[in-house]
Formats: sequence, structure tokens, C-alpha cells
Amino acid sequence: MHIGRLGEFGLIERMRKSIKVDSSVIVGSGDDCAVLKFDKKYFQLFTCDMLVESVDFTKQTDLALVGRKALAVSLSDIAACAGLPRYAVVSLGLPKGFSVRQADKLIKGMVNLANVHKLNIVGGDISVSSKLVIDVSMLGIVEKDFLVKRSGAEKGDIIFTTGSLGGSIKGKHLKFIPRLKEARFLVENFKVNSMIDISDGLAQDLGHILVASRKGAVIYEALVPKSKEAETLEDALYSGEDFELLFTMSRTQAKKLLLKQSRAFYPLGEITGKIGSLKLIRKNGKEKNIEKKGFRHF
Amino acid sequence: MHIGRLGEFGLIERMRKSIKVDSSVIVGSGDDCAVLKFDKKYFQLFTCDMLVESVDFTKQTDLALVGRKALAVSLSDIAACAGLPRYAVVSLGLPKGFSVRQADKLIKGMVNLANVHKLNIVGGDISVSSKLVIDVSMLGIVEKDFLVKRSGAEKGDIIFTTGSLGGSIKGKHLKFIPRLKEARFLVENFKVNSMIDISDGLAQDLGHILVASRKGAVIYEALVPKSKEAETLEDALYSGEDFELLFTMSRTQAKKLLLKQSRAFYPLGEITGKIGSLKLIRKNGKEKNIEKKGFRHF
Repeated sequence: MHIGRLGEFGLIERMRKSIKVDSSVIVGSGDDCAVLKFDKKYFQLFTCDMLVESVDFTKQTDLALVGRKALAVSLSDIAACAGLPRYAVVSLGLPKGFSVRQADKLIKGMVNLANVHKLNIVGGDISVSSKLVIDVSMLGIVEKDFLVKRSGAEKGDIIFTTGSLGGSIKGKHLKFIPRLKEARFLVENFKVNSMIDISDGLAQDLGHILVASRKGAVIYEALVPKSKEAETLEDALYSGEDFELLFTMSRTQAKKLLLKQSRAFYPLGEITGKIGSLKLIRKNGKEKNIEKKGFRHF
Repeated sequence: MHIGRLGEFGLIERMRKSIKVDSSVIVGSGDDCAVLKFDKKYFQLFTCDMLVESVDFTKQTDLALVGRKALAVSLSDIAACAGLPRYAVVSLGLPKGFSVRQADKLIKGMVNLANVHKLNIVGGDISVSSKLVIDVSMLGIVEKDFLVKRSGAEKGDIIFTTGSLGGSIKGKHLKFIPRLKEARFLVENFKVNSMIDISDGLAQDLGHILVASRKGAVIYEALVPKSKEAETLEDALYSGEDFELLFTMSRTQAKKLLLKQSRAFYPLGEITGKIGSLKLIRKNGKEKNIEKKGFRHF
């Protein structure tokens, strides 16, 4: 069987079943970060992301933006767990013809973003590769009380996102701001029940919350915050790499958030008890099933 | 300037200069592992290694051995710091035609070795890539008293290795045993001054110890433990991927080790005060300078 039929998530699920972990692993593979025992106050977060030329960026992309993105996607995973980033190691697969000037640009893009977030780049590995490959692994910490998982959504929760969605391919995927501040603002002031970052599209990543939480959801067409770059509603539902946070909280907490809010949080739907059901309420009031599809690697 | 002129180590040095780290980083990039503050008793170790098809293995290599090697090289880095491996995350860049059966083999190779070392595989990422790429990031811990760095070699230290060297390309590079047990045996019973794993060849990796420790060394042709697969002395000096440990300890400690030893440790030379000098004493007693060269990625 070709791996395309199983898909990325099928393969991860398959790996998960064959792997044993001990009791120090609070959350293993499958969430945005692994969550590990650390000390009395904190859990440790551990995540990795690989960027590949011709998939995540092109040969023509400004290498400073490529370096920036390589760190930003992992920072977004730390944000999705409401964590504080601490350390990263970077593996580079560089084409034989790569110049020192190109390497400097790539590194500059990484270092600049690392400095913004007081992230320590502490090591790396360099190999030859036919196409440019960058893999970043990141460690963070999160207060035990503040950890938010995908699996905590409750019936009646309001679903929010931290920004507008769709059309990221036109540039945002290289320049997005990892929502670390927003995540910390949320967990420090509210009770967030579930959270994920939108890397593969609203429908698919909401789908991950629904599966992990054993719930359903409705979203309202009129409320979906379509970005200027999104041409259609479908772009906002199914296109990847927005790297906004998607989170849910009780109606009471949601009201508090909407009253207090100084930043932009967009309510766009509601968690239901219908396991696995994901519906769109059209502007005309009609219901429509949404496929939990999105960006597919294979 | 082409990156080949700067080389892997030149590029790492260049990156290092542009990166700021805070006081929680005990050892940053450049050693086998980054060493980070952890708790009262332990430091945390953090390392990553990328394997690329056609460089580190071929399209024909048994994928179970490829998976095994991907973990083993990072385990060897943890061993070089005398640590205990704890957690790993794995990024896979898979060619489009990759089958589920191939993925299963790769994963089996990883999981089997992880189980041997009670290593928890806790997460990963999957991308499309024209050639197979595997990046493993690993966390370990080491008692503060047991940490061994590259920089601690002292004049008069005896230089040892944990096994025979050379000709790894004929198969050992896929099947080597990471020297975790040997490293722990050493630090639990002796005072080890410096240690590194031989990934790029004896001459080059001993060179790293000499640079970090600001020392020189002589090695004795008659004592170099040439493996059966090594055809010439040069193979044992310059060929990579033996993944044996190279370590130094005082003459007194070395005598104790040689008396007590139940496992194989091979003394092969001595640390001198001549900074940067690396000499071979021939079987006929004549001296010869050794280049601190070895495997070059570019």
C-alpha cells in the first residue's frame, strides 16, 4: 500500500501503536508538542518540524524568510500548548552548491526570530542534501495548570481563532507571528479547554480537536474570519499554514473574553455533542457537512 | 564563497558567533550535545542528527538498519557526554512513492533500538522529500559530576578508544552499538577528563578534543586498534562513522582502568602540551605529523 492512502496522520497513528513510552510521558506523539514530566511547577514541551525546499518554500524564497519560518512553525507548536519556548537545535541539509552568503542569510532569519523570543539555539547538525532541508527541534516549558491539550473541548464550548484565515500561500506562511503572546494571555486570564495551531487548515485542525475530545462542532459561515488573501470560503476552511491558534472555552469564559478583549479573538462556532460531526451554518441558515480535510502531504 | 571552503565546522563556528544564549546553557553548540541546566542533580543533554539518502545510506540499504542508525548516532552523542538517553522526536522526509511496508520497516528499526535503551519516542513530523531524510533529536540527562566535555584533556593524559577503528563503511556504520554502557562504566568508576564519539575519524575527532582543550597529542601506530575491515592505517585514522568513544584520563586513572578492565578499552596515545600538534609515532620509532582531517560533508 502506498503511503498516500494511509496519509500523514494514519502513519503517525501506526507509529504510535508500536511505540512504548514510560509514565514520565504525559502526552506522547499526536499533539502539537510532546509533554514530559519536568519539575514541581512545569511540564517540558518537545516538538520538531521539518521544512523541505519545493514543499514548504521554493528555491527563489528569500532565505532569511526560510530560516524565520523554520523556527516559527515550532514556536507555533509551543504556543498551541500555551508554553514558553526555551531551546532549539537545528539540522541543516544543504545542497552542494550552497554559498556561505546563503547560509548567513538563513541563519540570520533564524537568529533574529530566536532573539525576539529569547530562544536559545544550542546546537545543530549539517549534512549534504540534494534539496535544502531544515529541521528544528524545540524545547519549552509550561506551568502544569496552564497546559492546554487538543482533547479538552466540552459540549457548548465556543470556538475561537486568533486571526483571519486563508490564502496564507500568498505570503503569510513566511511571515506569520507565532501566537505565543496570545496563548499566554489566554491561559493566564481564562480557562481554555482545548487548543491547536492551524497548520493544515481550519477544518482539518478543528477535526483533530473533535477526534481527540470525542465531540462535534458547528461553525458559522458569517463568523469565519476570511483573510484578504482568501478568495473563497473554501480557502479559509481548507488551506493550510495560517498558524493561528484555534481554541475552545465555555460560554461563560467566552463572554468574559469578548468583554475584556483588547486583542483580536474571533468566535466562529460551537462544540456539540455529536461525535465526529462538523457542520457549517450558511448565511442563509442552511446546514452543510464540512469534510475534515485540509493540506495533505501525500 | 562556496560552503565547501568553510566546511561544516567553519559554518558551525560562524553560526555560534551570531547566536546569543543565556546562562542556563552550560555548553552550547559545538560539543556532541548541548548541556542545559535541569535540576539539582542532573544536567539535560540535547542533540540532533540528520541522515540523508545517498550520503548516510543508499536506496538499497535495509530500512530497518536505516531506522536503527538514525537513533544510534544520537545515542552515541549522548554516550559521548556520559549521559542517559530519555526522549526522542523524529522528523521524516519521505519520497512520494514510499510504501507503508517501507515505513513499517524504518519504524521497526527505530523502535527496537529505542526499547533496548528505554528511550521514549514522543513525537515527530512527516514531510514529502525527493530523497529519504531522517532527523532525530534526543534528550538525555547526566549527573553534574559525571559530565565529560571535549575541553578537559590534560597534558600527560592517556588517550583511549572503546573499539577498533576503520572500514566502518563495510557495514559497522549501520550496526554499531552506541557506547552508552561503556561511558557509564567509565564515569562511575574513573575520572575521565575528555570524551567525544568518533563520527568523522580518529584524527579529526581527536583534533576536536585538542582544539577544545588547547593541547597536542601523539598516537602510536603500534597501538592503533585497526579493525578487520580497515585496509590501511589511514583507514583507521581518517575514515568516519566508527562511533567508538575517544577519551582521555590521567596516567594513574589509566593504570587503574587497565588493571580493572573487564571490557575492551584500547590505549593508543598521549596528550601533550604542544597546542595543535598531532603526531604519529611509527613502528620504527620515527615521528610523522598527522593531519586533523577526516570525513568531510562538503
